[in-house]
Amino acid sequence: MKTPRLSWLPRSVLLAALPFSVLQAWADTAATSTSAPEAKYQGAASPLVSEPMHQNINPKAPPMTEAEFSHAKQIYFERCAGCHGVLRKGATGKPLTPDITLGRGTEYLKTFIKYGSPAGMPNWGTSGELSDAQVDLMARYVQQEPPTPPEFGMKDMLGTWKVLIPPEKRPTHKENNLDVANLFSVTLRDAGQIALIDGNSKQIVSVLKTGYAVHISRLSQSGRYLYVIGRDGKINLIDLWMAKPDTVAEIRIGLEARSVETSKFKGFEDKLAVAGAYWPPQYVIMDGNSLKPLKIVGTRGMTVDNEYHPEPRVASIVASHYKPEFVINAKETGKIMMVNYSDLANLKTTTIDAAKFLHDGGFDTTGRYFMVAANASNKVAVVDTKLDKLAALVDVGKTPHPGRGANFVDPQYGPVWATGHLGDDSISLIGTDPDKHKAQAWKVVRVLKGQGGGSLFIKTHPKSHNLWVDTALNPDAAVSQSAAVFDINHLDKGFVTLPIGEWSGLGDGAKRVLQPEYNKDGSEVWFSVWSGKDKQSAIVVVDDKTRKLKAVIKDPRLITPTGKFNVFNTQHDIY
Amino acid sequence: MKTPRLSWLPRSVLLAALPFSVLQAWADTAATSTSAPEAKYQGAASPLVSEPMHQNINPKAPPMTEAEFSHAKQIYFERCAGCHGVLRKGATGKPLTPDITLGRGTEYLKTFIKYGSPAGMPNWGTSGELSDAQVDLMARYVQQEPPTPPEFGMKDMLGTWKVLIPPEKRPTHKENNLDVANLFSVTLRDAGQIALIDGNSKQIVSVLKTGYAVHISRLSQSGRYLYVIGRDGKINLIDLWMAKPDTVAEIRIGLEARSVETSKFKGFEDKLAVAGAYWPPQYVIMDGNSLKPLKIVGTRGMTVDNEYHPEPRVASIVASHYKPEFVINAKETGKIMMVNYSDLANLKTTTIDAAKFLHDGGFDTTGRYFMVAANASNKVAVVDTKLDKLAALVDVGKTPHPGRGANFVDPQYGPVWATGHLGDDSISLIGTDPDKHKAQAWKVVRVLKGQGGGSLFIKTHPKSHNLWVDTALNPDAAVSQSAAVFDINHLDKGFVTLPIGEWSGLGDGAKRVLQPEYNKDGSEVWFSVWSGKDKQSAIVVVDDKTRKLKAVIKDPRLITPTGKFNVFNTQHDIY
Repeated sequence: MKTPRLSWLPRSVLLAALPFSVLQAWADTAATSTSAPEAKYQGAASPLVSEPMHQNINPKAPPMTEAEFSHAKQIYFERCAGCHGVLRKGATGKPLTPDITLGRGTEYLKTFIKYGSPAGMPNWGTSGELSDAQVDLMARYVQQEPPTPPEFGMKDMLGTWKVLIPPEKRPTHKENNLDVANLFSVTLRDAGQIALIDGNSKQIVSVLKTGYAVHISRLSQSGRYLYVIGRDGKINLIDLWMAKPDTVAEIRIGLEARSVETSKFKGFEDKLAVAGAYWPPQYVIMDGNSLKPLKIVGTRGMTVDNEYHPEPRVASIVASHYKPEFVINAKETGKIMMVNYSDLANLKTTTIDAAKFLHDGGFDTTGRYFMVAANASNKVAVVDTKLDKLAALVDVGKTPHPGRGANFVDPQYGPVWATGHLGDDSISLIGTDPDKHKAQAWKVVRVLKGQGGGSLFIKTHPKSHNLWVDTALNPDAAVSQSAAVFDINHLDKGFVTLPIGEWSGLGDGAKRVLQPEYNKDGSEVWFSVWSGKDKQSAIVVVDDKTRKLKAVIKDPRLITPTGKFNVFNTQHDIY
Repeated sequence: MKTPRLSWLPRSVLLAALPFSVLQAWADTAATSTSAPEAKYQGAASPLVSEPMHQNINPKAPPMTEAEFSHAKQIYFERCAGCHGVLRKGATGKPLTPDITLGRGTEYLKTFIKYGSPAGMPNWGTSGELSDAQVDLMARYVQQEPPTPPEFGMKDMLGTWKVLIPPEKRPTHKENNLDVANLFSVTLRDAGQIALIDGNSKQIVSVLKTGYAVHISRLSQSGRYLYVIGRDGKINLIDLWMAKPDTVAEIRIGLEARSVETSKFKGFEDKLAVAGAYWPPQYVIMDGNSLKPLKIVGTRGMTVDNEYHPEPRVASIVASHYKPEFVINAKETGKIMMVNYSDLANLKTTTIDAAKFLHDGGFDTTGRYFMVAANASNKVAVVDTKLDKLAALVDVGKTPHPGRGANFVDPQYGPVWATGHLGDDSISLIGTDPDKHKAQAWKVVRVLKGQGGGSLFIKTHPKSHNLWVDTALNPDAAVSQSAAVFDINHLDKGFVTLPIGEWSGLGDGAKRVLQPEYNKDGSEVWFSVWSGKDKQSAIVVVDDKTRKLKAVIKDPRLITPTGKFNVFNTQHDIY
C-alpha cells in the first residue's frame, strides 16, 4: 500500500482545511459534532439495527440508522463536500452518486476512504481522521441518495441582516491615524476572525469576529470599506474610517460561500456589493453601504455541455473596470456571467461558455482581460471584459490554482500572467498582450519548473522582479514549508528556495507556508506560516530586494493565519 | 353540497384537456394507462398492504404500495400537474407539497378532490373522472414527497432528433399551387395530429402526425416553414414548399412543453428556432432548418420575490422585431427573458422582473410592446422590446387569458390591446400608445362585460370592426357553445351572441366553441367546435361583415380541433 500522502499533517490542520461550521446550520442534529459521537462508532462497524432506520428512496442502499445517517451527513459536509459537492455530482473530486457508488460496493469504498488514492483522495482512515467505524459509515452513506440542504432566499437573508451602525451615523472623515492603504486584512481561519495588521509597524490594529474561515477580503472602490466573507456565508462590512475599524453591517447569504466583491465602475463606486454562495448555488447583489440584499440570482442550469447541473457553485467574482458589471464564475457549469448591475429590475447578463470547474483568477495588467482557472479541466479561460466574450481557452498544467495569478513582463515574450498548479510542479506563463505581442497572446509562452505540486498562490508586484510561488499543499514538508522565488529577468536560471518555515522560528511541527502578499509599495512580501489551531502560527515578512528575512509577526491572537489582503493592492487589482 | 361545476362535461372532453402523453415517457410503469388499473381501485379504498410498499422519505405520509404510488403518479401527471406543477409548488392551482397536505389530512383532501371547489378545483369524483378508490389514492399520494421527473439534456434531445429531408434535398422553389399564406394549421388535439386546411376551398390539404395536443403553430419569418409543438415536447418542422407539405425534421425537447418560435430579426430570418419546456424547466435554441439543438438554458431560479423555485415552466415565447432576441416567459418566477440569439456562446440576456404566473400574450399593433398575462396575479405585464425594460404592470380582471390578445383602436381612447379572463366575465382594454395617448398608455381604459368567465381567446383583425370573445370553459353550456361579438365602434352597446355550436349542426352533446381565428384578408372568422375524441367535431366559418354563417367544415379526420393558426396572420403577428 502506498504511503498515505497526508499522514504527515496534524489532525488539526486537516480539520482546519474543511468547511466546518456549514453543517451547524443544516444538520438536523445540530448538537452533534464531528467528534462527539465518534466513540460510538469506534467499535461497532455494523449499523445498530434496533434503532430507527433511515428511509432511503433507493432500497438497494445498505441500511443505516437515522442516527448514523445524520452523523455521516455531518462528516460528509465537513470533509467531502468541498471537493465532491453537496449533491455529490463531483468537481475537484469524483462524482459519488448512488448510480456509481452502489456499483462499487461497501468494501471497495471503505478501502478508498481509508487509504486514499494517488489522484488526490486523502487517506481519511490511515491519517487518523476517521475511525474504521466511521470509514464504514461513510462507505454506506455515499450509497444513499444525497439529501438536499434547504434553500436560503430573501426571507432567510433578511433574517440574518444586521446594520450595526447605519451609514448616517458613520464617520464623515477618517477618524484614525492609520495608513489604511497599507493595512493587511488577515484571515484567522479557525478562529472565525480577521486581524487588521498595520503594514508599517507590523502591529495588530484590531481582531474582529467574522464568519468561519474567511475566504477573501475585498475593498470598496474608495478603499474605505472592507468586505470579508466566511465559508459559512457570513459577510462583515468593516468601516476603515472609524477610530477603531469595526463591523458596521453583516448578513448571511447562504449556507456555504467563497466570494464577495464590490462595484467599481464609474458612477457606482462604493454603491453595491455582490456575494456568491456554494450552497444554495446563487449570488446576491446587495447595497454596498448596508449589505441590504437587493437581488438574488440562482445559478442552477446547464453546463457548457448542455446538461443540467443541480449545484453550480459560485466560485470567484471580480468587478469589471470596463462596464458596470460583475464577472461571476459558476464552477460546475463552466459558465462566466457578466452581470450588469446598473438596472437590477431588468438585469442584463452575458453568459460566456468557458470550461467546467471554474475556480479563481485575476485580471491581466491592463484590467481588460480576466484570466480564470478551470481547474479540473486543466485550462485557463480568458474573458475580454470590454467585449464580454471569451477571448481564449488556454491549456495549462494539471489543476491550475492561481489565486489571482501574477502579472509581469517576460523579457522574451512580453506581458504575461502566470499560474501555479495543484497537480504538478509547473508554472504556466500566458501571453496577455494581443496588441503588441499578438503571436504570444493567450498562449503558454513558457513553463517554469517549481518546487513541486500543491501550489496555491503565486505573486509578484509591478515594482519587483521577483516571482514568488508557494507549495502549501505539497506532501513533502520541506517543500510545503518553504517558498520558491524566481528572478523575472532570468527565468531560465530557475528558482531559489527560501526557508520561510524555518525563518518563522516556530520550530518543528507540521505547518504550511502560503500566500505571498506584497505590502503597498512592493518592498516586502508577507507569508503566512499556518500551524494547527492549538499551536503557534506566524507571519514572515521578507525584504523583496534582498530576499532576506525582515520580520516575524507573532501574537497569541494570530491563530491559523491564511489569506492576507493588502488594502491598496486588493483595491487596485495589483498582483 | 354545491353542484360540481364540471359535471356537465363528458369524460372524453375532460381527459382531452389534460397533458396525456407526458407520462408515457416518465412513468416507471409505462404500460399502465389511466383506465387500465382502474377496476382494481374501484372497490378497495385501503392500500394493499401485502404488496411492496413505497418508501417515502417522510414517515408521516400515509402508506402506499409501490403499485399505488406508480398509478397515482400517472393520474397526477395527467390531471393535476398542469395547474399544480410537477413538483406541486402551485401555479394556477394551489401548492400541494406535503408540508401543506399532511396538515390537511386524508379525509379533507378526499372531499376536496371528489367535490372540487368554487375557486376552480374540478370535481374529479362526482364528475365520474375518478372512482372513490382513486380519490382515496390521490389524497394519499399528494401527502408523499413529489417525485422529480428526470432531466432532458443535450444527449436526450439528440437521441430524438431526426432530419427526414435534409435542407439540401428540399425544394428550391414552391412546388405546390397552394395559397400558403391563407393555409390554416389546425391542432387535432387528441389525435396527435395537425390538419392543414386551405383557407379558400376549406378543404383539408394534409393531416400530419405530430406530438400530442399541439399547443401552437408558428411560422418562420419567410412563411415557408411551419413549426408545431406538442404538449409532449415534440416539434415538427413542416416545409410548406413541398408538393405536399410534410415534416422534414423533428425533435423532442423535454417531457412536457408549450411553446415554439422562430428568429425574425433582419439577418436571422428562418435561421433559428426556440422552444420552451414545462419539464424540465428550460428552453432550447435550435438550427431553424434542421432543428439541431444548439443551446439549452435552464430556467430554475428565483421568483420576482427572490425565493427559489424548482419548476419555472416556460410559457409563451415570441420573437422580437426590434432586436435579435426571443422574449421568453417563465411562468412561476414571473421573469421575462430577452434572449439575444446573435451569439450563443456568449449569450446576452436581459431578465425582466414582471409578476408571477406568466402565461400567454401578444404584441401591440406597433410590434414594440409585448403584453403578457400574469394570470394568477391578475395582471398584464408590458415589455418594451426596444428598451428591454418593463414598461408597466397593469391590474386587470381575474386570471386574464388573452391568447395573443386583440389590437384595435378604441374610438374614445385610441389604440388598445384587449384580454378576456378565465376567472370573470370582464374584457380589459389597455391603452398601448404612449406617444399620442400618453394618459391612457398602460392603463385599463375600458372594461367590457362579456358572456361570462372561462374565456380563452379574443380576436379581431385590422380590416374588421368586430371583436370576438369565446367563453369555452364557462360551465354553462349555452355560454360555452356560443361566442360574443362586439362592434368596436359601438363598444357601449354590448355584445351580440352568435350560436356557433348550433350552427355547427353537430346536434346535442357537450362541446366547446373556441379560438376565433381570421383568414388572411380578414373577411372570415373561424371557430373550432370541439367535441369528444369519439364524437364529430367541426370548424364553423363566420362571415365577418355580416356575422352570418358562411361554412361548416366537417371531416372524419377532424378529431378534436382546437387551435387554428392562419399562416399569414401568425407569420406577421396580426391579431
